[in-house]
Amino acid sequence: MLDKSKTILIVGLGLIGGSYARALTDAGYRVTAIDCDPDAIAYALSECMIEDGATNADPALVSSADLIVFALYPHVFLDWIRENQHLLKPGVLLTDVTGVKGKIVEEVQSILRPDAEFIAAHPMAGREVSGVENSTPAIFRGANYIVVPTEKNTQAAIDTCRALGETLGFARVSELSPALHDEIVGFVSQLTHCIAIALMTCNQDEHLEEYTGDSFRDLTRIARINDEMWSELFLWNRDKLIEQIDSFSSELGSIREMLINGDRDALRRLMRRATERRAKFDKK
Amino acid sequence: MLDKSKTILIVGLGLIGGSYARALTDAGYRVTAIDCDPDAIAYALSECMIEDGATNADPALVSSADLIVFALYPHVFLDWIRENQHLLKPGVLLTDVTGVKGKIVEEVQSILRPDAEFIAAHPMAGREVSGVENSTPAIFRGANYIVVPTEKNTQAAIDTCRALGETLGFARVSELSPALHDEIVGFVSQLTHCIAIALMTCNQDEHLEEYTGDSFRDLTRIARINDEMWSELFLWNRDKLIEQIDSFSSELGSIREMLINGDRDALRRLMRRATERRAKFDKK
Repeated sequence: MLDKSKTILIVGLGLIGGSYARALTDAGYRVTAIDCDPDAIAYALSECMIEDGATNADPALVSSADLIVFALYPHVFLDWIRENQHLLKPGVLLTDVTGVKGKIVEEVQSILRPDAEFIAAHPMAGREVSGVENSTPAIFRGANYIVVPTEKNTQAAIDTCRALGETLGFARVSELSPALHDEIVGFVSQLTHCIAIALMTCNQDEHLEEYTGDSFRDLTRIARINDEMWSELFLWNRDKLIEQIDSFSSELGSIREMLINGDRDALRRLMRRATERRAKFDKK
Repeated sequence: MLDKSKTILIVGLGLIGGSYARALTDAGYRVTAIDCDPDAIAYALSECMIEDGATNADPALVSSADLIVFALYPHVFLDWIRENQHLLKPGVLLTDVTGVKGKIVEEVQSILRPDAEFIAAHPMAGREVSGVENSTPAIFRGANYIVVPTEKNTQAAIDTCRALGETLGFARVSELSPALHDEIVGFVSQLTHCIAIALMTCNQDEHLEEYTGDSFRDLTRIARINDEMWSELFLWNRDKLIEQIDSFSSELGSIREMLINGDRDALRRLMRRATERRAKFDKK
């Protein structure tokens, strides 16, 4: 990817931005950061995760970056580009970690200066806790990294972005179009969060933790959720998420029908299909 | 509980029965077992998990047991009692590990000899794999054990059953009525398995494993399911399971409405409630 004399700027030093900073510093890159929270910058400096940092779009920091990673909420990301892109170094490559792509990638690429390039990416990693102090590149191990190019991207940018995913330590790097990304993420990530939330709130029993097995704990781990971030992601991807809710609800409705009909054979066939499909995930 | 000169018979030497056998042998009890599979008995003898075993209801084994644990599918459990209860030692205590209670407990207690007592229990533990060779008392650590008494049970039997849960190494022993047990298990265990199955079968993408994060993997771990056992459990508890599916579907429907209305405040409120309720599970 980039040679190690170049500088990588992380904008947004939370859990994911912080984990990028640690991984890239460990890999030998010069890493700088911008975050509006002075404590986040101070922490990252004290941990030697970054070489330099600022609490605003410091012109010197921005203009010295060869690669910028945006780890911001979607609307903050768009605002940042609008307000600060005049500071970018010509030829700079921008990437992101945003959990939805379609409208955001289109918007950024349409407003961006012609001498800069934005290549979208989605690191499929996270934790139930947030903040730079919880950041660790360990969350990337065994995880998937999705590069989301459009017809406006150059092959060089795609290659650099793929190499970034590998440098960060992801187990697998793949490519999806923005539309397919949003459809799949609506299913594997957003729908699962909706399910975890609904499971955690549909029953008023105050003593559930006394009666649960691992199943319920597994299905609700992600119900501890950053409401500010996820509500924004859900609404950016609303149409695709609703389609996924409907598709899942229809399947759950089929199970309900099998129960009503006492159709044990149909239940067993469906369980065997689920078992077979799930088994693929455990092969590595 | 029972003094250690007494004998505990395990009927059904699969994952759970085998884990009971190991834990109770380790605790110093004399443990015997019955399983129709000669390989299961041979394995358990070779591993010194049991002192004696048989592939049928051997009169000597059955009549020498002071406590019998049934780890069978529900209909097999009922058949066994009907066919073999004449062999029981007077004063014997019976317990089980069955995942549904209402109709089964009622039936066993109504047909059982008056000089024997059945106290139901549900160890909330399991694995995605089955069979005695996968058994380990480690699955009981940190887990919940539910004693399910009826008005026909003596306090002595309830106390012995609670002590059994503690001896096995469960983190928490609680009591529920059969009706409440089935309602709660319909929610925390059976509904979650229905959700995992539906998630795993509602989408036909053959490459999902390339794009998933931990969320989807967590929510579908239990989609690798023993179809013979779970289809039977679902159908025994059909009415309560359907109620739970409906309650969950209605909550998921509310989230869908919030998305349609773009009601970010309502989404955030619900997410915060989910977070707060889920946080209780992580306190220990």
